[in-house]
Amino acid sequence: MSLKIYNVLTRTKEEFKPVEEGRVGIYVCGPTVYDHPHIGHAKNYVGFDVVVRYLRYLGYKVLYVQNITDVGHLVDDRDEGEDKIQKRARRERVLPMQLVETYMRIFFENMDALNVLRPDISPRAAGHVPEQIEMVQELIEKGHAYQSNGSVYFDVSSWPEYGKLSGRKVAEQEEGARLEINEEKRHPSDFALWKNADPEHILQWKSPWGMGFPGWHVECSAMARKYLGKTFDIHGGGIDNMFPHNECEIAQSEAAHDGETFANYWMLGGSLTLDGVKMSKSLGNTLTISDALSGHRPEAIRMFILSSKYRNPIDFSDDALDSAETGWNRLWNTVSELRKRIQSAPDGEATSEVESIVQQIIEDFEQAMNDDFNAPAAIAVLRDLATQTNKILNDGKSHSRGSLQALDNAFRSLGGDVLAIIPSDSDGGNGSAAREEGLIQLLIEMRANARENKDWAASDRIRDELKELGVQLLDGANGTTWQIS
Amino acid sequence: MSLKIYNVLTRTKEEFKPVEEGRVGIYVCGPTVYDHPHIGHAKNYVGFDVVVRYLRYLGYKVLYVQNITDVGHLVDDRDEGEDKIQKRARRERVLPMQLVETYMRIFFENMDALNVLRPDISPRAAGHVPEQIEMVQELIEKGHAYQSNGSVYFDVSSWPEYGKLSGRKVAEQEEGARLEINEEKRHPSDFALWKNADPEHILQWKSPWGMGFPGWHVECSAMARKYLGKTFDIHGGGIDNMFPHNECEIAQSEAAHDGETFANYWMLGGSLTLDGVKMSKSLGNTLTISDALSGHRPEAIRMFILSSKYRNPIDFSDDALDSAETGWNRLWNTVSELRKRIQSAPDGEATSEVESIVQQIIEDFEQAMNDDFNAPAAIAVLRDLATQTNKILNDGKSHSRGSLQALDNAFRSLGGDVLAIIPSDSDGGNGSAAREEGLIQLLIEMRANARENKDWAASDRIRDELKELGVQLLDGANGTTWQIS
Repeated sequence: MSLKIYNVLTRTKEEFKPVEEGRVGIYVCGPTVYDHPHIGHAKNYVGFDVVVRYLRYLGYKVLYVQNITDVGHLVDDRDEGEDKIQKRARRERVLPMQLVETYMRIFFENMDALNVLRPDISPRAAGHVPEQIEMVQELIEKGHAYQSNGSVYFDVSSWPEYGKLSGRKVAEQEEGARLEINEEKRHPSDFALWKNADPEHILQWKSPWGMGFPGWHVECSAMARKYLGKTFDIHGGGIDNMFPHNECEIAQSEAAHDGETFANYWMLGGSLTLDGVKMSKSLGNTLTISDALSGHRPEAIRMFILSSKYRNPIDFSDDALDSAETGWNRLWNTVSELRKRIQSAPDGEATSEVESIVQQIIEDFEQAMNDDFNAPAAIAVLRDLATQTNKILNDGKSHSRGSLQALDNAFRSLGGDVLAIIPSDSDGGNGSAAREEGLIQLLIEMRANARENKDWAASDRIRDELKELGVQLLDGANGTTWQIS
Repeated sequence: MSLKIYNVLTRTKEEFKPVEEGRVGIYVCGPTVYDHPHIGHAKNYVGFDVVVRYLRYLGYKVLYVQNITDVGHLVDDRDEGEDKIQKRARRERVLPMQLVETYMRIFFENMDALNVLRPDISPRAAGHVPEQIEMVQELIEKGHAYQSNGSVYFDVSSWPEYGKLSGRKVAEQEEGARLEINEEKRHPSDFALWKNADPEHILQWKSPWGMGFPGWHVECSAMARKYLGKTFDIHGGGIDNMFPHNECEIAQSEAAHDGETFANYWMLGGSLTLDGVKMSKSLGNTLTISDALSGHRPEAIRMFILSSKYRNPIDFSDDALDSAETGWNRLWNTVSELRKRIQSAPDGEATSEVESIVQQIIEDFEQAMNDDFNAPAAIAVLRDLATQTNKILNDGKSHSRGSLQALDNAFRSLGGDVLAIIPSDSDGGNGSAAREEGLIQLLIEMRANARENKDWAASDRIRDELKELGVQLLDGANGTTWQIS
């Protein structure tokens, strides 16, 4: 059984062979930090989080690089319009780099909340201007780029492979897209490597071509080379940025390196729609990660995202998320009962029966994940493990601690380390709240008993002392409820 | 009453006049992120946090810039030895920028935990190489720096003001310090602006002088100029870095700008000793912020730090921190009782008596803080407010919600917004834990009652249901205690 990855470049599943035995270099396009990240970002980065976690599970030493775009990403994703950061900064009346600090922080806080492991290196575009200028110079020297009015463009006609990732031929691109006429370009499909800056442009640097700023695409080529080398293993991103962004990255890097392969495997995540519609700020249908987290456990959000293969599209709706949460609760109830039973289980090794169940589960799980990181199939294996665990817990026999521990170890490794949907602590990271609820419920029952026994003093005392602790009891037709005041 | 700042440059308290009416630009030297931050970092950054918070309280629009040193800081703080980041990265077998990500993250997490507001911009040295090269070029052009063997040094003999911050004349510096002989330098006091890099040096960039990396001092000059302009209001740092670091910054910036003032006010924080001894890793007496936080509330740590003026030295000991925590508990008990009473207070405006108490407190507080941010005096004013609040709460009279609210507003504004030692929520950010404790205590008392009444069924039920919730009761000679199992 070996790991297979669907390589967008070849449109086939290929066996994974790293550049260097035992190591994986992976670059994933990061966010442009000018606004709150939304649930579509969650889909993409949770998807690659599981990729990285599984590669580590397999024993690879992974170097995960994910950039932060803080300059050069223009409003229309092509080479025209204002810089997204600069535009938003002006609206919020702050400096561009203040805006970047704010949204970069929110991005990482959201990712942390979703149990997404931090990349090993998060290089910022504005912090790598020399590296980008250097690559642009190389491209000019090799005849793949030209200067024009203080800007520099990549000459697509010099690189016949341009289009090989998206399969879009230059001629088709021009028919399909509404390309604005830019007098600086020799050919409408040429794209900016460096843009000259208006004097009022805040984000600008000195370059051999005058004051300006790097084009959006070249940051990824330059930073991937700096931290991962000319050729590395996996390049990830979202399908929405396959063209022009990823296409331009390949052209830049491979043209600069005389055709040496940029990334061996291209993995692109499917997009996310909201109630069937593409998220769009102008339509007002966006859902931020913070909003999603306010009503749901992070594990449930991950479960929802992982219920679909990373490269498939997914439609987000409240119902779909609720249903993922129900599924998660079922899984968690089993794990949590299992961990309680471990506490009181008699000493003893795992039986060979349990060991073979676990062995089979691990095999099934790896088979699922080895098939291009098939997370929904892997979750199905975890559900199978839960079913078998329930059977064992409810068979009326006594089971050794070793047996129960072996089952829990599988949950921890596969559901915890790899998918990060099973918390490692026995109370699901939420023990205190659950306990508090239990304590209040117990006191409510004792008060009900006291009232039945007409022990009004005891009943009043419970009500009053709870009130003192900030817990207000509300007696209604269907019994007593409570709220924290 | 106007704000006065002790300006290290003039060794006098001066009235604060910002460059631009209503705005303050402040630059504080940030950490070199190669290890866990220690309690000495906490002293420095809590100190400047209160400075920034108070300036904002006064209505200034503050732009707070604090750098991250991720390249160029050599082991001996002078111009010799290995880069601190590179050395540690080699030891941990990671890339320098991986190490930087890790410790930068820990630094900010520690600062967040201490209620230290994030700087508006946290620029990184390695992300501002072009800006540093540009300044070095200017210094060469103006005759204040020279190239030597691929490195560039600042020529101290060209800048007679060198030494004006620390008061150390060049001749004295050489007598006092053990300066290593560096053949590249014309004069032993000259300092590096750019260092040529050995081929095996990982952190290096192209420059007009060959491959190399910026000297430690020039990052602050270049980044302060980029984000705050040539002349800005306040430069902060720790007294330990006055020489050579701050001294070199002034020389670089003012020489590059033909003598234009760099920062108008220099504020340097006193150092911290641990049980009377300078913290030192070789002595093994360092205390990380995480360790300090594990046994104490962040507010208590702030209270300890702020019990001394920012520019005074302070000695840390467990006793001193415990005593600060006791003081904090006293203050907090008052605030917490006050907030409870507000809940049940009758409607009504604040009395003129309470209003005048609050007015006086605000005046006293501002007077303390206007005197070079005298935090210990400001805390004494809060204690005074607590005393007067206790008197009012215990005078046996009924007080209107408006009166009690006015007192709480003063605690929130002065103790919360400015000093950040008074939590804004009524339960001190710890309500759930306190409530849980209260609920368990109530159940223990009910069980004791049941046992007195020989109602063994009720007593057992409480014990068993608590056990079910993970709360184990332990009956002892001095009554019943409990633990979470």
